[in-house]
Amino acid sequence: MKFLIEKSLLQEAISDVQKAITGKSTLPILQGIYISAKDGLLTLIGSDIEVSIETKIPANIIEEGEVVLDSKIFGEIIRKLPNDIVEITEINSNEVELKCQKSNVQLVYLNPKEYPTLPSIEEDVVLSVSQKTLKNMIKSTIFAIAQDDTRPILTGVLLQVKENKLNMVALDGFRVALKSESMDCKSNKESVIPGKTLNEVSKILKDTDDVVQITFTKNHILFNFGNTKVISRLLEGDFIKYESIIPKEHNLKVTVNRNEILGCIERASLMAKDGNTNLVKFDISDDTLVVTSNSQLGKAREEVQIILQGEGIKIAFNSKYLIDVFKTMEEENITMEFTSTVSPCVIRNQDSDNSVYLLLPVRVANNN
Amino acid sequence: MKFLIEKSLLQEAISDVQKAITGKSTLPILQGIYISAKDGLLTLIGSDIEVSIETKIPANIIEEGEVVLDSKIFGEIIRKLPNDIVEITEINSNEVELKCQKSNVQLVYLNPKEYPTLPSIEEDVVLSVSQKTLKNMIKSTIFAIAQDDTRPILTGVLLQVKENKLNMVALDGFRVALKSESMDCKSNKESVIPGKTLNEVSKILKDTDDVVQITFTKNHILFNFGNTKVISRLLEGDFIKYESIIPKEHNLKVTVNRNEILGCIERASLMAKDGNTNLVKFDISDDTLVVTSNSQLGKAREEVQIILQGEGIKIAFNSKYLIDVFKTMEEENITMEFTSTVSPCVIRNQDSDNSVYLLLPVRVANNN
Repeated sequence: MKFLIEKSLLQEAISDVQKAITGKSTLPILQGIYISAKDGLLTLIGSDIEVSIETKIPANIIEEGEVVLDSKIFGEIIRKLPNDIVEITEINSNEVELKCQKSNVQLVYLNPKEYPTLPSIEEDVVLSVSQKTLKNMIKSTIFAIAQDDTRPILTGVLLQVKENKLNMVALDGFRVALKSESMDCKSNKESVIPGKTLNEVSKILKDTDDVVQITFTKNHILFNFGNTKVISRLLEGDFIKYESIIPKEHNLKVTVNRNEILGCIERASLMAKDGNTNLVKFDISDDTLVVTSNSQLGKAREEVQIILQGEGIKIAFNSKYLIDVFKTMEEENITMEFTSTVSPCVIRNQDSDNSVYLLLPVRVANNN
Repeated sequence: MKFLIEKSLLQEAISDVQKAITGKSTLPILQGIYISAKDGLLTLIGSDIEVSIETKIPANIIEEGEVVLDSKIFGEIIRKLPNDIVEITEINSNEVELKCQKSNVQLVYLNPKEYPTLPSIEEDVVLSVSQKTLKNMIKSTIFAIAQDDTRPILTGVLLQVKENKLNMVALDGFRVALKSESMDCKSNKESVIPGKTLNEVSKILKDTDDVVQITFTKNHILFNFGNTKVISRLLEGDFIKYESIIPKEHNLKVTVNRNEILGCIERASLMAKDGNTNLVKFDISDDTLVVTSNSQLGKAREEVQIILQGEGIKIAFNSKYLIDVFKTMEEENITMEFTSTVSPCVIRNQDSDNSVYLLLPVRVANNN
């Protein structure tokens, strides 16, 4: 194996495939990056079995071949080389030589025959979405996945194609995050993608209109964007029927500036640390929403102007959940719908229905 | 106590005094910020006994008084308030009220009478130096202090006024870092300042020509810059006579581009991780310095062009120490002076003698 490639291109490819290498695998070969040089293309693969990332870059290939190089040290060497052409050559049966200007590194390689093969996926594209849309949908929902493994299916995000809409849904028993985009797609499909996979996918996605193609099989999902592919196992089991959880009606509706209410809740939450409850209370009446909190350290009272449709209400929440939602949303004004002190609150954008967040209130003995 | 002050001014003052609050003290009162409102000035103090930081800011004081407020929560509340005037009022014998626009926080305060008094220091200024000079001198030396407490005096930096020079010196038994600045000062003085203190002072110092005044007493040092004072205990004991360690003569001298040799050593060090030795070998001859390293993972060979005065030499170093020095220095070209394979190497700026670094080589069995 012998090839020449621009250092910066190689560095970017390494950085992409490293996102799949967790170092947690018990297979030592998975600490490595698989590299194959063939047909004018360099293929790099990083994997922890659950998630695999493959990227292809054109290179000047003088002799075809394949090796596996320790991800950490190979990545660091390339990163620290000067910005110039790097020449990589297999010099004997277990070493490659890296040359760049006056640098010369000989690096032991692992046996590429031991590297696991990627699951084969028939690339009959199911749906196409722009990178920035997918990135935004992931960011808008992933914070609401379950943090513990009690119900493994909830550590994933539901990706659903239904009635010409692409929906992403995360929920953890206390809250629901739903983001939708219209999409011209006839078939209906759904699968649950591990949160970890989406986190890594989201790091590779750019804020551009370039397209990501998504293909499902029974057990795997493939994201194909340009020269890079991400393949992940899916989570097994049925996702909770989220549609039935979201209330269709409400008794009162509050419209409020998102940044203002976020600031109020962030400040009030500083006084809500006792016993990890993060409890903040809302007192909604007329044109004012009053946020209060109490702790041994003191108490806070914050006021924000609102437009209220319906009667007032007193209701309490875990401030962390409110902050997560308001920080994730991007619009200037949002609405909050309430039915009763013990019913979920539904938060939406004022002007569009592509984001729906649901939060369970906290029941408090005395809500005054 | 009652006063009004611009949020941003208060936030900056809090951030300065918080640098002294480590949370490691056993005295609960030291988790707080002491605040006194008097004579049109607000005085804030943070302290962990070893180091105390005091800052004064003008404020609209309506009623004089003093309180101690929990540093973390008070800091967070002020940081999250809108950019406007904050009104702080003592509302009863253990609470203050913070008001800003529609925010209202009541915060329990601690008894200011329990707050330790700062050591009194007669401010007969011993020396004045610009903030950027002092900041640069700290950065140029502090990395070389001892990291463990075996010899406590070496966890500090020697500040020495001698023969119209201000010297700062750090050493840890393997290396010496010395930075000097000319200074018009008749008296000779020296003291050893804890590294931790200088770290915090360095964070407050700005890259400006504004002056810092430094006052020594037997046990304390006072840095006075504008409205802020830092008072620290000094380390007790005699510092090592560093002048006698630095060789006066050498057999060969290498002049080299600093960034080029830094890159070579950084790359070679990646192959020098075995057994934590970080060992890199130099082979100096004619116009070339060759850096090599070996490990189970492979080996590296780097070349850098030099100007050599004297005979060649083969010598080995801990690459970490070389990297520390070359990263800290700022000049384009530097010189390295060698006497023998087992004698210290002296590193200087090519064009000025205000920086001197000394490194012990590593003795290796076979230096080929």
